[in-house]
Amino acid sequence: MAAAEQEIFRWPVRVYYEDTDAGGVVYHARYLNFCERARTEWLRARGWEQDALIREQNVVFVVSRASLEYRRPARFNDALDVTCEVARLRAVAIDFTQRVERSADSAVLCGVSVRVVCVDAGTMRPKPIPEAILESFA
Amino acid sequence: MAAAEQEIFRWPVRVYYEDTDAGGVVYHARYLNFCERARTEWLRARGWEQDALIREQNVVFVVSRASLEYRRPARFNDALDVTCEVARLRAVAIDFTQRVERSADSAVLCGVSVRVVCVDAGTMRPKPIPEAILESFA
Amino acid sequence: MAAAEQEIFRWPVRVYYEDTDAGGVVYHARYLNFCERARTEWLRARGWEQDALIREQNVVFVVSRASLEYRRPARFNDALDVTCEVARLRAVAIDFTQRVERSADSAVLCGVSVRVVCVDAGTMRPKPIPEAILESFA
Amino acid sequence: MAAAEQEIFRWPVRVYYEDTDAGGVVYHARYLNFCERARTEWLRARGWEQDALIREQNVVFVVSRASLEYRRPARFNDALDVTCEVARLRAVAIDFTQRVERSADSAVLCGVSVRVVCVDAGTMRPKPIPEAILESFA
Repeated sequence: MAAAEQEIFRWPVRVYYEDTDAGGVVYHARYLNFCERARTEWLRARGWEQDALIREQNVVFVVSRASLEYRRPARFNDALDVTCEVARLRAVAIDFTQRVERSADSAVLCGVSVRVVCVDAGTMRPKPIPEAILESFA
Repeated sequence: MAAAEQEIFRWPVRVYYEDTDAGGVVYHARYLNFCERARTEWLRARGWEQDALIREQNVVFVVSRASLEYRRPARFNDALDVTCEVARLRAVAIDFTQRVERSADSAVLCGVSVRVVCVDAGTMRPKPIPEAILESFA
Repeated sequence: MAAAEQEIFRWPVRVYYEDTDAGGVVYHARYLNFCERARTEWLRARGWEQDALIREQNVVFVVSRASLEYRRPARFNDALDVTCEVARLRAVAIDFTQRVERSADSAVLCGVSVRVVCVDAGTMRPKPIPEAILESFA
Repeated sequence: MAAAEQEIFRWPVRVYYEDTDAGGVVYHARYLNFCERARTEWLRARGWEQDALIREQNVVFVVSRASLEYRRPARFNDALDVTCEVARLRAVAIDFTQRVERSADSAVLCGVSVRVVCVDAGTMRPKPIPEAILESFA
Protein backbone atom coordinates (compact mmCIF):
# COMPACT_ATOMS: atom_id res chain seq x y z
CA MET A 1 0.00 0.00 0.00
CA ALA A 2 1.47 3.32 -1.05
CA ALA A 3 1.82 6.31 1.28
CA ALA A 4 -1.00 8.17 -0.44
CA GLU A 5 -3.34 5.23 -0.02
CA GLN A 6 -2.53 5.01 3.69
CA GLU A 7 -3.72 8.56 4.22
CA ILE A 8 -7.22 8.04 2.84
CA PHE A 9 -9.79 8.54 5.57
CA ARG A 10 -11.73 5.36 6.40
CA TRP A 11 -14.72 4.97 8.69
CA PRO A 12 -15.87 1.52 9.83
CA VAL A 13 -19.54 0.65 9.39
CA ARG A 14 -21.18 -2.60 10.47
CA VAL A 15 -24.18 -3.90 8.54
CA TYR A 16 -27.14 -4.53 10.89
CA TYR A 17 -30.58 -5.93 10.04
CA GLU A 18 -31.90 -2.36 9.76
CA ASP A 19 -29.62 -1.82 6.73
CA THR A 20 -30.71 -4.87 4.75
CA ASP A 21 -33.78 -5.69 2.70
CA ALA A 22 -35.70 -8.83 1.77
CA GLY A 23 -33.24 -9.42 -1.08
CA GLY A 24 -30.73 -10.31 1.64
CA VAL A 25 -28.45 -7.38 0.84
CA VAL A 26 -27.97 -3.79 1.97
CA TYR A 27 -30.81 -1.60 0.67
CA HIS A 28 -29.45 0.62 -2.11
CA ALA A 29 -30.33 3.94 -0.48
CA ARG A 30 -28.42 3.06 2.71
CA TYR A 31 -25.06 3.57 1.01
CA LEU A 32 -25.84 7.30 1.05
CA ASN A 33 -26.34 7.05 4.83
CA PHE A 34 -23.04 5.24 5.24
CA CYS A 35 -21.26 7.85 3.13
CA GLU A 36 -22.69 10.69 5.18
CA ARG A 37 -21.48 9.07 8.39
CA ALA A 38 -17.98 8.94 6.90
CA ARG A 39 -18.11 12.60 5.78
CA THR A 40 -19.32 13.63 9.25
CA GLU A 41 -16.45 11.76 10.88
CA TRP A 42 -13.95 13.11 8.34
CA LEU A 43 -15.09 16.62 9.27
CA ARG A 44 -14.92 15.78 12.98
CA ALA A 45 -11.36 14.46 12.54
CA ARG A 46 -10.48 17.92 11.20
CA GLY A 47 -11.93 19.53 14.31
CA TRP A 48 -15.40 20.51 13.07
CA GLU A 49 -18.59 19.49 14.82
CA GLN A 50 -21.58 20.19 12.56
CA ASP A 51 -23.87 21.32 15.37
CA ALA A 52 -21.22 23.86 16.44
CA LEU A 53 -20.80 24.99 12.81
CA ILE A 54 -24.49 25.90 12.69
CA ARG A 55 -24.43 27.73 16.03
CA GLU A 56 -21.07 29.45 15.74
CA GLN A 57 -20.46 29.93 12.04
CA ASN A 58 -24.04 29.89 10.77
CA VAL A 59 -23.21 27.40 8.03
CA VAL A 60 -24.65 24.04 7.01
CA PHE A 61 -23.36 21.66 4.37
CA VAL A 62 -26.12 20.24 2.18
CA VAL A 63 -25.91 17.55 -0.49
CA SER A 64 -26.63 18.99 -3.94
CA ARG A 65 -25.86 15.95 -6.05
CA ALA A 66 -24.88 12.34 -5.63
CA SER A 67 -24.16 9.40 -7.87
CA LEU A 68 -23.67 5.79 -6.94
CA GLU A 69 -22.32 2.81 -8.82
CA TYR A 70 -23.23 -0.50 -7.21
CA ARG A 71 -20.68 -3.22 -7.98
CA ARG A 72 -21.24 -5.99 -5.44
CA PRO A 73 -23.78 -6.26 -2.65
CA ALA A 74 -22.96 -5.78 1.03
CA ARG A 75 -24.64 -8.37 3.21
CA PHE A 76 -25.98 -8.68 6.75
CA ASN A 77 -23.22 -8.64 9.38
CA ASP A 78 -20.53 -7.48 6.93
CA ALA A 79 -17.86 -5.17 8.30
CA LEU A 80 -17.38 -2.28 5.87
CA ASP A 81 -15.01 0.64 5.48
CA VAL A 82 -16.23 3.86 3.95
CA THR A 83 -13.57 6.12 2.47
CA CYS A 84 -13.77 9.89 2.17
CA GLU A 85 -11.57 12.01 -0.10
CA VAL A 86 -11.91 15.54 -1.44
CA ALA A 87 -11.96 15.31 -5.22
CA ARG A 88 -12.32 19.03 -5.78
CA LEU A 89 -12.60 22.00 -3.47
CA ARG A 90 -14.51 25.06 -4.69
CA ALA A 91 -15.41 28.34 -3.02
CA VAL A 92 -18.90 27.22 -2.00
CA ALA A 93 -18.85 23.48 -2.60
CA ILE A 94 -16.85 20.31 -2.02
CA ASP A 95 -16.83 17.30 -4.33
CA PHE A 96 -16.18 14.07 -2.47
CA THR A 97 -15.13 10.72 -3.87
CA GLN A 98 -16.11 7.86 -1.60
CA ARG A 99 -16.03 4.09 -1.67
CA VAL A 100 -17.81 1.48 0.39
CA GLU A 101 -15.41 -1.42 0.81
CA ARG A 102 -15.80 -4.84 2.43
CA SER A 103 -13.24 -4.92 5.23
CA ALA A 104 -12.47 -8.64 4.89
CA ASP A 105 -10.94 -8.33 1.41
CA SER A 106 -11.05 -4.60 0.57
CA ALA A 107 -13.41 -5.34 -2.34
CA VAL A 108 -15.08 -2.15 -3.54
CA LEU A 109 -18.84 -2.68 -3.21
CA CYS A 110 -20.03 0.78 -4.17
CA GLY A 111 -18.38 3.87 -5.65
CA VAL A 112 -19.97 7.19 -4.70
CA SER A 113 -19.56 10.83 -5.75
CA VAL A 114 -21.18 13.51 -3.62
CA ARG A 115 -21.23 17.29 -3.91
CA VAL A 116 -22.00 19.25 -0.75
CA VAL A 117 -22.69 22.97 -0.84
CA CYS A 118 -22.02 25.38 2.00
CA VAL A 119 -25.19 27.34 2.76
CA ASP A 120 -26.23 30.02 5.24
CA ALA A 121 -28.05 28.23 8.08
CA GLY A 122 -30.72 30.92 8.10
CA THR A 123 -31.44 31.68 4.46
CA MET A 124 -30.19 28.31 3.09
CA ARG A 125 -28.50 30.25 0.28
CA PRO A 126 -24.99 29.24 -0.88
CA LYS A 127 -22.14 31.13 0.76
CA PRO A 128 -18.35 30.73 0.71
CA ILE A 129 -16.89 28.05 2.94
CA PRO A 130 -15.32 29.87 5.94
CA GLU A 131 -11.55 30.33 5.58
CA ALA A 132 -10.70 28.44 8.77
CA ILE A 133 -12.59 25.41 7.54
CA LEU A 134 -10.92 25.52 4.12
CA GLU A 135 -7.50 25.68 5.73
CA SER A 136 -8.19 22.63 7.86
CA PHE A 137 -8.83 20.61 4.71
CA ALA A 138 -5.38 21.26 3.23
CA MET B 1 -68.99 -6.02 10.82
CA ALA B 2 -70.67 -3.93 13.52
CA ALA B 3 -71.26 -0.20 13.23
CA ALA B 4 -68.51 0.58 15.74
CA GLU B 5 -66.02 -1.47 13.78
CA GLN B 6 -66.90 0.30 10.55
CA GLU B 7 -65.96 3.62 12.08
CA ILE B 8 -62.42 2.66 13.00
CA PHE B 9 -59.94 4.76 11.03
CA ARG B 10 -57.80 2.72 8.64
CA TRP B 11 -54.82 3.86 6.59
CA PRO B 12 -53.42 1.69 3.79
CA VAL B 13 -49.68 1.02 3.76
CA ARG B 14 -47.83 -0.98 1.12
CA VAL B 15 -44.67 -2.88 2.08
CA TYR B 16 -41.74 -1.90 -0.15
CA TYR B 17 -38.18 -3.25 -0.13
CA GLU B 18 -37.15 -0.33 2.09
CA ASP B 19 -39.39 -1.71 4.87
CA THR B 20 -38.01 -5.24 4.90
CA ASP B 21 -34.84 -6.80 6.25
CA ALA B 22 -32.65 -9.77 5.36
CA GLY B 23 -34.99 -12.01 7.35
CA GLY B 24 -37.49 -11.48 4.54
CA VAL B 25 -39.97 -9.64 6.76
CA VAL B 26 -40.76 -6.06 7.76
CA TYR B 27 -38.08 -4.71 10.11
CA HIS B 28 -39.56 -4.48 13.62
CA ALA B 29 -38.98 -0.74 14.08
CA ARG B 30 -40.89 0.09 10.88
CA TYR B 31 -44.25 -0.67 12.51
CA LEU B 32 -43.76 2.53 14.52
CA ASN B 33 -43.30 4.43 11.24
CA PHE B 34 -46.47 2.87 9.83
CA CYS B 35 -48.42 3.77 12.97
CA GLU B 36 -47.26 7.36 12.84
CA ARG B 37 -48.39 7.65 9.23
CA ALA B 38 -51.85 6.47 10.33
CA ARG B 39 -51.98 8.91 13.27
CA THR B 40 -50.94 11.75 10.95
CA GLU B 41 -53.70 10.86 8.48
CA TRP B 42 -56.23 10.39 11.30
CA LEU B 43 -55.39 13.93 12.45
CA ARG B 44 -55.57 15.23 8.87
CA ALA B 45 -59.00 13.61 8.45
CA ARG B 46 -60.13 15.69 11.45
CA GLY B 47 -58.87 18.85 9.74
CA TRP B 48 -55.48 19.27 11.39
CA GLU B 49 -52.26 19.62 9.45
CA GLN B 50 -49.30 19.23 11.79
CA ASP B 51 -47.17 21.88 10.13
CA ALA B 52 -50.04 24.36 10.54
CA LEU B 53 -50.47 23.30 14.19
CA ILE B 54 -46.87 24.30 14.88
CA ARG B 55 -47.15 27.64 13.08
CA GLU B 56 -50.64 28.65 14.16
CA GLN B 57 -51.19 26.96 17.52
CA ASN B 58 -47.57 26.54 18.65
CA VAL B 59 -48.15 22.89 19.56
CA VAL B 60 -46.42 19.67 18.63
CA PHE B 61 -47.44 16.13 19.51
CA VAL B 62 -44.52 13.97 20.63
CA VAL B 63 -44.46 10.26 21.41
CA SER B 64 -43.76 9.63 25.10
CA ARG B 65 -44.26 5.87 25.20
CA ALA B 66 -44.95 3.02 22.83
CA SER B 67 -45.38 -0.71 23.11
CA LEU B 68 -45.60 -3.26 20.35
CA GLU B 69 -46.66 -6.87 20.26
CA TYR B 70 -45.53 -8.68 17.12
CA ARG B 71 -47.84 -11.57 16.23
CA ARG B 72 -47.13 -12.47 12.60
CA PRO B 73 -44.64 -10.97 10.18
CA ALA B 74 -45.58 -8.65 7.34
CA ARG B 75 -43.74 -9.48 4.14
CA PHE B 76 -42.47 -7.71 1.03
CA ASN B 77 -45.28 -6.47 -1.21
CA ASP B 78 -48.00 -7.04 1.42
CA ALA B 79 -50.88 -4.57 1.46
CA LEU B 80 -51.51 -3.52 5.06
CA ASP B 81 -54.11 -1.48 6.91
CA VAL B 82 -53.11 0.48 9.98
CA THR B 83 -55.90 1.35 12.39
CA CYS B 84 -56.01 4.34 14.71
CA GLU B 85 -58.32 4.69 17.71
CA VAL B 86 -58.24 6.94 20.76
CA ALA B 87 -58.09 4.69 23.83
CA ARG B 88 -58.02 7.54 26.32
CA LEU B 89 -58.02 11.28 26.01
CA ARG B 90 -56.34 13.34 28.73
CA ALA B 91 -55.73 17.05 29.16
CA VAL B 92 -52.19 16.94 27.78
CA ALA B 93 -51.93 13.48 26.24
CA ILE B 94 -53.67 11.01 23.97
CA ASP B 95 -53.39 7.24 24.27
CA PHE B 96 -53.84 5.50 20.93
CA THR B 97 -54.59 1.86 20.25
CA GLN B 98 -53.43 0.79 16.82
CA ARG B 99 -53.20 -2.40 14.81
CA VAL B 100 -51.28 -3.31 11.71
CA GLU B 101 -53.45 -5.70 9.71
CA ARG B 102 -52.82 -7.66 6.52
CA SER B 103 -55.42 -6.40 4.05
CA ALA B 104 -55.89 -9.75 2.31
CA ASP B 105 -57.36 -11.52 5.36
CA SER B 106 -57.53 -8.84 8.09
CA ALA B 107 -55.05 -10.86 10.18
CA VAL B 108 -53.60 -8.70 12.97
CA LEU B 109 -49.83 -8.68 12.48
CA CYS B 110 -48.90 -6.21 15.19
CA GLY B 111 -50.75 -4.57 18.09
CA VAL B 112 -49.45 -1.17 19.14
CA SER B 113 -50.14 1.27 21.99
CA VAL B 114 -48.78 4.80 21.71
CA ARG B 115 -49.04 7.79 24.01
CA VAL B 116 -48.49 11.22 22.46
CA VAL B 117 -48.09 14.33 24.57
CA CYS B 118 -49.03 17.83 23.50
CA VAL B 119 -46.03 20.14 24.00
CA ASP B 120 -45.28 23.81 23.42
CA ALA B 121 -43.40 24.02 20.09
CA GLY B 122 -40.97 26.51 21.61
CA THR B 123 -40.20 25.18 25.08
CA MET B 124 -41.13 21.54 24.37
CA ARG B 125 -42.92 21.46 27.75
CA PRO B 126 -46.31 19.74 28.07
CA LYS B 127 -49.33 21.97 27.67
CA PRO B 128 -53.07 21.31 27.40
CA ILE B 129 -54.36 20.16 24.04
CA PRO B 130 -56.14 23.20 22.48
CA GLU B 131 -59.92 23.09 22.94
CA ALA B 132 -60.70 23.18 19.22
CA ILE B 133 -58.55 20.13 18.64
CA LEU B 134 -60.14 18.24 21.52
CA GLU B 135 -63.59 18.97 20.19
CA SER B 136 -62.74 17.63 16.76
CA PHE B 137 -61.84 14.28 18.32
CA ALA B 138 -65.26 13.75 19.85
CA MET C 1 -50.11 20.00 -20.82
CA ALA C 2 -49.32 17.97 -23.92
CA ALA C 3 -50.61 14.45 -24.50
CA ALA C 4 -47.17 12.93 -23.92
CA GLU C 5 -46.86 14.70 -20.59
CA GLN C 6 -50.25 13.44 -19.47
CA GLU C 7 -49.12 9.87 -19.89
CA ILE C 8 -46.16 10.09 -17.56
CA PHE C 9 -46.65 7.77 -14.60
CA ARG C 10 -46.97 9.62 -11.27
CA TRP C 11 -47.08 8.15 -7.79
CA PRO C 12 -48.16 10.28 -4.80
CA VAL C 13 -45.90 10.31 -1.74
CA ARG C 14 -46.61 12.18 1.48
CA VAL C 15 -43.68 13.45 3.57
CA TYR C 16 -43.94 12.18 7.17
CA TYR C 17 -41.63 12.91 10.11
CA GLU C 18 -39.76 9.67 9.36
CA ASP C 19 -38.61 11.17 6.04
CA THR C 20 -37.19 14.40 7.43
CA ASP C 21 -34.01 15.28 9.29
CA ALA C 22 -32.96 17.90 11.83
CA GLY C 23 -32.33 20.32 8.95
CA GLY C 24 -36.12 20.46 8.59
CA VAL C 25 -36.10 18.89 5.14
CA VAL C 26 -36.36 15.43 3.60
CA TYR C 27 -33.16 13.45 4.22
CA HIS C 28 -31.24 13.18 0.93
CA ALA C 29 -31.17 9.37 0.80
CA ARG C 30 -34.97 9.14 1.12
CA TYR C 31 -35.47 10.31 -2.47
CA LEU C 32 -34.14 6.92 -3.55
CA ASN C 33 -36.81 5.26 -1.40
CA PHE C 34 -39.51 7.44 -2.96
CA CYS C 35 -38.27 6.62 -6.46
CA GLU C 36 -38.31 2.91 -5.75
CA ARG C 37 -41.91 3.12 -4.56
CA ALA C 38 -42.81 4.78 -7.85
CA ARG C 39 -40.96 2.16 -9.92
CA THR C 40 -42.68 -0.61 -7.96
CA GLU C 41 -46.09 0.94 -8.62
CA TRP C 42 -45.23 1.58 -12.27
CA LEU C 43 -44.42 -2.12 -12.59
CA ARG C 44 -47.60 -3.08 -10.73
CA ALA C 45 -49.65 -0.86 -13.07
CA ARG C 46 -48.26 -2.99 -15.93
CA GLY C 47 -49.42 -6.13 -14.19
CA TRP C 48 -46.22 -7.27 -12.50
CA GLU C 49 -45.98 -8.01 -8.80
CA GLN C 50 -42.33 -8.31 -7.80
CA ASP C 51 -42.87 -11.14 -5.32
CA ALA C 52 -44.62 -13.13 -8.07
CA LEU C 53 -41.78 -12.32 -10.51
CA ILE C 54 -39.32 -13.96 -8.12
CA ARG C 55 -41.49 -17.04 -7.55
CA GLU C 56 -42.80 -17.54 -11.08
CA GLN C 57 -40.16 -16.09 -13.38
CA ASN C 58 -37.10 -16.39 -11.11
CA VAL C 59 -36.08 -12.79 -11.81
CA VAL C 60 -35.28 -9.82 -9.60
CA PHE C 61 -34.58 -6.25 -10.64
CA VAL C 62 -31.64 -4.72 -8.80
CA VAL C 63 -30.35 -1.15 -8.88
CA SER C 64 -26.90 -0.96 -10.48
CA ARG C 65 -26.47 2.80 -10.60
CA ALA C 66 -28.26 5.92 -9.51
CA SER C 67 -27.65 9.65 -9.70
CA LEU C 68 -29.56 12.42 -8.01
CA GLU C 69 -29.63 16.16 -8.50
CA TYR C 70 -31.18 18.00 -5.58
CA ARG C 71 -32.76 21.30 -6.63
CA ARG C 72 -35.08 22.37 -3.83
CA PRO C 73 -35.83 20.70 -0.52
CA ALA C 74 -39.04 18.81 0.21
CA ARG C 75 -40.39 19.59 3.68
CA PHE C 76 -42.44 17.90 6.38
CA ASN C 77 -46.06 17.33 5.36
CA ASP C 78 -45.44 18.14 1.68
CA ALA C 79 -47.48 16.21 -0.86
CA LEU C 80 -45.15 14.97 -3.60
CA ASP C 81 -45.51 13.25 -6.94
CA VAL C 82 -42.81 10.90 -8.14
CA THR C 83 -42.65 10.31 -11.88
CA CYS C 84 -41.36 7.20 -13.60
CA GLU C 85 -40.36 6.97 -17.27
CA VAL C 86 -38.26 4.50 -19.21
CA ALA C 87 -35.35 6.40 -20.71
CA ARG C 88 -33.80 3.39 -22.38
CA LEU C 89 -34.67 -0.26 -22.53
CA ARG C 90 -31.88 -2.79 -22.99
CA ALA C 91 -31.82 -6.58 -23.07
CA VAL C 92 -30.86 -6.95 -19.42
CA ALA C 93 -31.35 -3.47 -18.00
CA ILE C 94 -33.76 -0.55 -17.83
CA ASP C 95 -32.71 3.08 -17.46
CA PHE C 96 -35.33 5.15 -15.67
CA THR C 97 -35.69 8.92 -15.56
CA GLN C 98 -37.57 10.07 -12.50
CA ARG C 99 -38.52 13.34 -10.85
CA VAL C 100 -39.72 14.17 -7.39
CA GLU C 101 -42.18 17.04 -7.73
CA ARG C 102 -44.04 19.13 -5.16
CA SER C 103 -47.73 18.56 -5.87
CA ALA C 104 -48.83 22.06 -4.91
CA ASP C 105 -46.94 23.80 -7.74
CA SER C 106 -45.30 20.97 -9.74
CA ALA C 107 -41.86 22.34 -8.83
CA VAL C 108 -39.17 19.76 -9.54
CA LEU C 109 -37.37 19.13 -6.24
CA CYS C 110 -35.09 16.31 -7.32
CA GLY C 111 -34.12 14.76 -10.66
CA VAL C 112 -33.10 11.11 -10.54
CA SER C 113 -31.64 8.58 -12.99
CA VAL C 114 -31.68 4.92 -12.04
CA ARG C 115 -30.49 1.81 -13.87
CA VAL C 116 -31.99 -1.50 -12.81
CA VAL C 117 -30.61 -4.80 -14.01
CA CYS C 118 -32.59 -8.00 -14.42
CA VAL C 119 -30.86 -10.81 -12.53
CA ASP C 120 -31.50 -14.49 -11.90
CA ALA C 121 -33.10 -14.72 -8.43
CA GLY C 122 -30.91 -17.69 -7.60
CA THR C 123 -27.48 -16.84 -8.96
CA MET C 124 -27.95 -13.06 -8.97
CA ARG C 125 -26.30 -12.97 -12.40
CA PRO C 126 -27.69 -10.71 -15.14
CA LYS C 127 -30.13 -12.37 -17.51
CA PRO C 128 -32.40 -11.05 -20.27
CA ILE C 129 -35.64 -9.43 -19.22
CA PRO C 130 -38.42 -11.96 -19.96
CA GLU C 131 -40.22 -11.26 -23.24
CA ALA C 132 -43.67 -10.88 -21.65
CA ILE C 133 -42.36 -8.22 -19.33
CA LEU C 134 -40.65 -6.33 -22.16
CA GLU C 135 -43.84 -6.35 -24.19
CA SER C 136 -45.86 -4.89 -21.33
CA PHE C 137 -43.53 -1.87 -21.27
CA ALA C 138 -44.21 -0.90 -24.87
CA MET D 1 -19.94 2.91 40.38
CA ALA D 2 -20.56 -0.53 41.84
CA ALA D 3 -19.04 -3.69 40.42
CA ALA D 4 -22.39 -4.81 38.99
CA GLU D 5 -22.85 -1.52 37.19
CA GLN D 6 -19.39 -1.75 35.65
CA GLU D 7 -20.29 -5.01 34.00
CA ILE D 8 -23.30 -3.70 32.11
CA PHE D 9 -22.69 -3.96 28.38
CA ARG D 10 -22.60 -0.59 26.62
CA TRP D 11 -22.44 0.12 22.89
CA PRO D 12 -21.62 3.60 21.60
CA VAL D 13 -23.93 5.13 18.98
CA ARG D 14 -23.45 8.48 17.32
CA VAL D 15 -26.51 10.45 16.17
CA TYR D 16 -26.25 11.36 12.48
CA TYR D 17 -28.66 13.38 10.36
CA GLU D 18 -30.26 10.14 9.18
CA ASP D 19 -31.46 9.47 12.75
CA THR D 20 -33.15 12.82 13.32
CA ASP D 21 -36.43 14.33 12.16
CA ALA D 22 -37.75 17.81 11.44
CA GLY D 23 -38.50 18.23 15.16
CA GLY D 24 -34.72 18.44 15.61
CA VAL D 25 -34.55 15.25 17.66
CA VAL D 26 -33.98 11.54 17.07
CA TYR D 27 -37.04 9.97 15.39
CA HIS D 28 -38.83 7.80 17.94
CA ALA D 29 -38.60 4.55 15.98
CA ARG D 30 -34.80 4.83 15.68
CA TYR D 31 -34.31 3.89 19.34
CA LEU D 32 -35.35 0.36 18.37
CA ASN D 33 -32.60 0.37 15.74
CA PHE D 34 -30.04 1.56 18.27
CA CYS D 35 -31.14 -1.14 20.74
CA GLU D 36 -30.81 -3.85 18.13
CA ARG D 37 -27.28 -2.74 17.31
CA ALA D 38 -26.42 -3.08 21.01
CA ARG D 39 -28.01 -6.55 21.27
CA THR D 40 -26.11 -7.65 18.15
CA GLU D 41 -22.83 -6.45 19.63
CA TRP D 42 -23.65 -7.96 23.02
CA LEU D 43 -24.14 -11.30 21.24
CA ARG D 44 -20.95 -10.82 19.23
CA ALA D 45 -19.02 -10.08 22.46
CA ARG D 46 -20.17 -13.52 23.68
CA GLY D 47 -18.80 -15.11 20.52
CA TRP D 48 -21.94 -15.39 18.41
CA GLU D 49 -22.22 -14.01 14.90
CA GLN D 50 -25.85 -14.00 13.81
CA ASP D 51 -25.14 -14.97 10.21
CA ALA D 52 -23.18 -17.98 11.46
CA LEU D 53 -26.03 -18.87 13.87
CA ILE D 54 -28.38 -19.13 10.92
CA ARG D 55 -26.00 -21.22 8.81
CA GLU D 56 -24.57 -23.45 11.53
CA GLN D 57 -27.26 -23.72 14.19
CA ASN D 58 -30.35 -22.96 12.06
CA VAL D 59 -31.63 -20.41 14.58
CA VAL D 60 -32.71 -16.78 14.32
CA PHE D 61 -33.69 -14.45 17.13
CA VAL D 62 -36.79 -12.39 16.35
CA VAL D 63 -38.35 -9.56 18.34
CA SER D 64 -41.78 -10.57 19.70
CA ARG D 65 -42.50 -7.53 21.85
CA ALA D 66 -40.97 -4.18 22.68
CA SER D 67 -41.87 -1.24 24.86
CA LEU D 68 -40.23 2.17 24.98
CA GLU D 69 -40.45 5.03 27.45
CA TYR D 70 -39.13 8.27 26.04
CA ARG D 71 -37.81 10.59 28.77
CA ARG D 72 -35.64 13.19 27.05
CA PRO D 73 -34.82 13.65 23.38
CA ALA D 74 -31.49 12.74 21.81
CA ARG D 75 -30.28 15.37 19.38
CA PHE D 76 -28.19 15.60 16.22
CA ASN D 77 -24.50 14.86 16.86
CA ASP D 78 -25.10 13.47 20.38
CA ALA D 79 -22.84 10.64 21.49
CA LEU D 80 -25.01 7.94 23.06
CA ASP D 81 -24.43 4.70 24.94
CA VAL D 82 -26.90 1.87 24.60
CA THR D 83 -26.93 -0.68 27.40
CA CYS D 84 -27.93 -4.33 27.12
CA GLU D 85 -28.83 -6.57 30.04
CA VAL D 86 -30.67 -9.87 30.26
CA ALA D 87 -33.70 -9.32 32.50
CA ARG D 88 -34.96 -12.88 32.22
CA LEU D 89 -33.79 -15.93 30.38
CA ARG D 90 -36.36 -18.53 29.31
CA ALA D 91 -36.11 -21.72 27.31
CA VAL D 92 -37.13 -20.13 24.02
CA ALA D 93 -36.94 -16.40 24.74
CA ILE D 94 -34.79 -13.68 26.25
CA ASP D 95 -36.14 -10.53 27.90
CA PHE D 96 -33.72 -7.62 27.59
CA THR D 97 -33.67 -4.39 29.56
CA GLN D 98 -31.95 -1.61 27.66
CA ARG D 99 -31.32 2.07 28.09
CA VAL D 100 -30.26 4.77 25.67
CA GLU D 101 -28.04 7.19 27.58
CA ARG D 102 -26.41 10.47 26.60
CA SER D 103 -22.67 9.88 26.96
CA ALA D 104 -21.88 13.42 28.12
CA ASP D 105 -23.82 13.17 31.39
CA SER D 106 -25.19 9.59 31.47
CA ALA D 107 -28.75 10.97 31.39
CA VAL D 108 -31.21 8.21 30.49
CA LEU D 109 -33.02 9.35 27.34
CA CYS D 110 -35.06 6.23 26.67
CA GLY D 111 -35.81 3.03 28.60
CA VAL D 112 -36.54 -0.02 26.48
CA SER D 113 -37.74 -3.59 27.12
CA VAL D 114 -37.44 -6.13 24.32
CA ARG D 115 -38.33 -9.80 24.13
CA VAL D 116 -36.59 -11.88 21.48
CA VAL D 117 -37.68 -15.39 20.65
CA CYS D 118 -35.43 -18.13 19.30
CA VAL D 119 -36.98 -19.58 16.14
CA ASP D 120 -36.05 -22.25 13.62
CA ALA D 121 -34.54 -20.44 10.63
CA GLY D 122 -36.49 -22.64 8.25
CA THR D 123 -39.96 -22.94 9.78
CA MET D 124 -39.79 -19.73 11.86
CA ARG D 125 -41.37 -21.67 14.75
CA PRO D 126 -40.08 -21.18 18.33
CA LYS D 127 -37.46 -23.66 19.46
CA PRO D 128 -35.23 -23.89 22.53
CA ILE D 129 -32.16 -21.69 22.60
CA PRO D 130 -29.17 -24.00 21.91
CA GLU D 131 -27.35 -25.06 25.09
CA ALA D 132 -24.00 -23.61 24.04
CA ILE D 133 -25.56 -20.21 23.53
CA LEU D 134 -27.35 -20.31 26.89
CA GLU D 135 -24.11 -21.20 28.66
CA SER D 136 -22.30 -18.26 27.11
CA PHE D 137 -24.84 -15.89 28.64
CA ALA D 138 -24.17 -16.99 32.22
